[in-house]
Amino acid sequence: MDPIGVFDSGVGGLTVVAALRRRLPAESILYLGDTARLPYGSKSPETVTRYTRRNIEFLVGRGVKAVVIACNTASALALEHLHLAPGMPLWGVIEPGARAAAAVSRGRVGVIATEATVRSDAYPQALRRLRPDLSVVSRACPLFVPLVEEGWHDDEVTARVAERYLAPLLEADIDTLVLGCTHYPLLKSVLARIVGPAVTLVDSAEAVAEVVAQGLTQAGLALPSHEGREGGAATQHLCVTDAGLSFQAVAGRILGAPDLPLEWVEVV
Amino acid sequence: MDPIGVFDSGVGGLTVVAALRRRLPAESILYLGDTARLPYGSKSPETVTRYTRRNIEFLVGRGVKAVVIACNTASALALEHLHLAPGMPLWGVIEPGARAAAAVSRGRVGVIATEATVRSDAYPQALRRLRPDLSVVSRACPLFVPLVEEGWHDDEVTARVAERYLAPLLEADIDTLVLGCTHYPLLKSVLARIVGPAVTLVDSAEAVAEVVAQGLTQAGLALPSHEGREGGAATQHLCVTDAGLSFQAVAGRILGAPDLPLEWVEVV
Repeated sequence: MDPIGVFDSGVGGLTVVAALRRRLPAESILYLGDTARLPYGSKSPETVTRYTRRNIEFLVGRGVKAVVIACNTASALALEHLHLAPGMPLWGVIEPGARAAAAVSRGRVGVIATEATVRSDAYPQALRRLRPDLSVVSRACPLFVPLVEEGWHDDEVTARVAERYLAPLLEADIDTLVLGCTHYPLLKSVLARIVGPAVTLVDSAEAVAEVVAQGLTQAGLALPSHEGREGGAATQHLCVTDAGLSFQAVAGRILGAPDLPLEWVEVV
Repeated sequence: MDPIGVFDSGVGGLTVVAALRRRLPAESILYLGDTARLPYGSKSPETVTRYTRRNIEFLVGRGVKAVVIACNTASALALEHLHLAPGMPLWGVIEPGARAAAAVSRGRVGVIATEATVRSDAYPQALRRLRPDLSVVSRACPLFVPLVEEGWHDDEVTARVAERYLAPLLEADIDTLVLGCTHYPLLKSVLARIVGPAVTLVDSAEAVAEVVAQGLTQAGLALPSHEGREGGAATQHLCVTDAGLSFQAVAGRILGAPDLPLEWVEVV
């Protein structure tokens, strides 16, 4: 059974894989983490687009039936420049995340993301297309990804960094906070404490899984939902472009399975 | 006049360029920052060696007369696997840094570096070859590079992170601290405050410049020291593999020249 291809610059996209597995347990997944070239969030649109194209070529070459770009930076910068073969669905994470935020916001949305995603203005544009009444404030948080990779998920230093990054958003009185990078859900407990109960955190992973489920059905590519579960056919295969040192530990935490096997692949 | 080629994963290697310009003002320099693939410090030896080889091929293709690997991670992981054309000198930064530390230590040396450099054990091995009596304690500091890139050089958050990283070294009662990553000299004021005046900070940049000066003379490749200065012929040319967003700002601070022109090159 052809898998769904999912890629991210690193380990963060596995939060989308976890959501896909909950929503579509029958579907197999082939994941590519471009760990040799991460992070994407500080790089230029041209470079991110080039890397994204090569990663998708790799997944398509491995026979996936659809592609999910589970990386906000790549979705923001590269999605519009990509042209896949007809009949091969392709989804990013920005539009689903923006939809989820637009559905719950009372008017003021904060977006935290990488430098490149913020500079692209992709979230504010998507949010205003959906709800022109929304006021949107964005903030780049370049230290969040390294803090997640260091494993300081619920930590005093992380809290200090987050307080500084979030201060202008809280001053702008946001009611909804979009976690615009797939690493950020791992910081949810720190972020929730700082923004308080009046601010809703939006993690696009669940929204993406829903969009993928509907899209596969529309394209006639969905498996009957019992198939994978009963036949035990649904597989999950993880590829990385470098043997990332912390990848396996964080991957295990996200997917609830320690010692996941990784295939090391070269994508140039 | 053929330049000296210098490369680093990013902007940190310019601390070595600044030292080379002070020590060898007549020499031209061609710098390559592999910003599209940074950081190296969390990557595997195989990947770092591959990237290092390609970067050196790029510099050699541009006609340099000698190569300096101004990146501790690449020096630690790749230097021994490289084979340059006969007559083309190649230096890393580990050996000169270890020599400088061995010359001043009273017996207990701390080394801070990237994860990959620490795992390679290159500094402890080099230090013990020079002085078997030395006791060496190492600590990986993966957040220092992102903190430098965020521009939080002399900052309260950086101090908290540094206190945590340095605690085991201070407990081990070190008298000398090797800054084993070319980014770290930018954190010197924070680090000096935390370790106190009894600990000597060793930044390998000056030591590398001295080794290069001697090596060029021995190889008959040195320019007469008046030539560049009087003829105004010494040039400095910076290439990057991605238009790093913070590169220019940090580069300007290190080299004391804002708005340095950058050439964007592709190295695959």
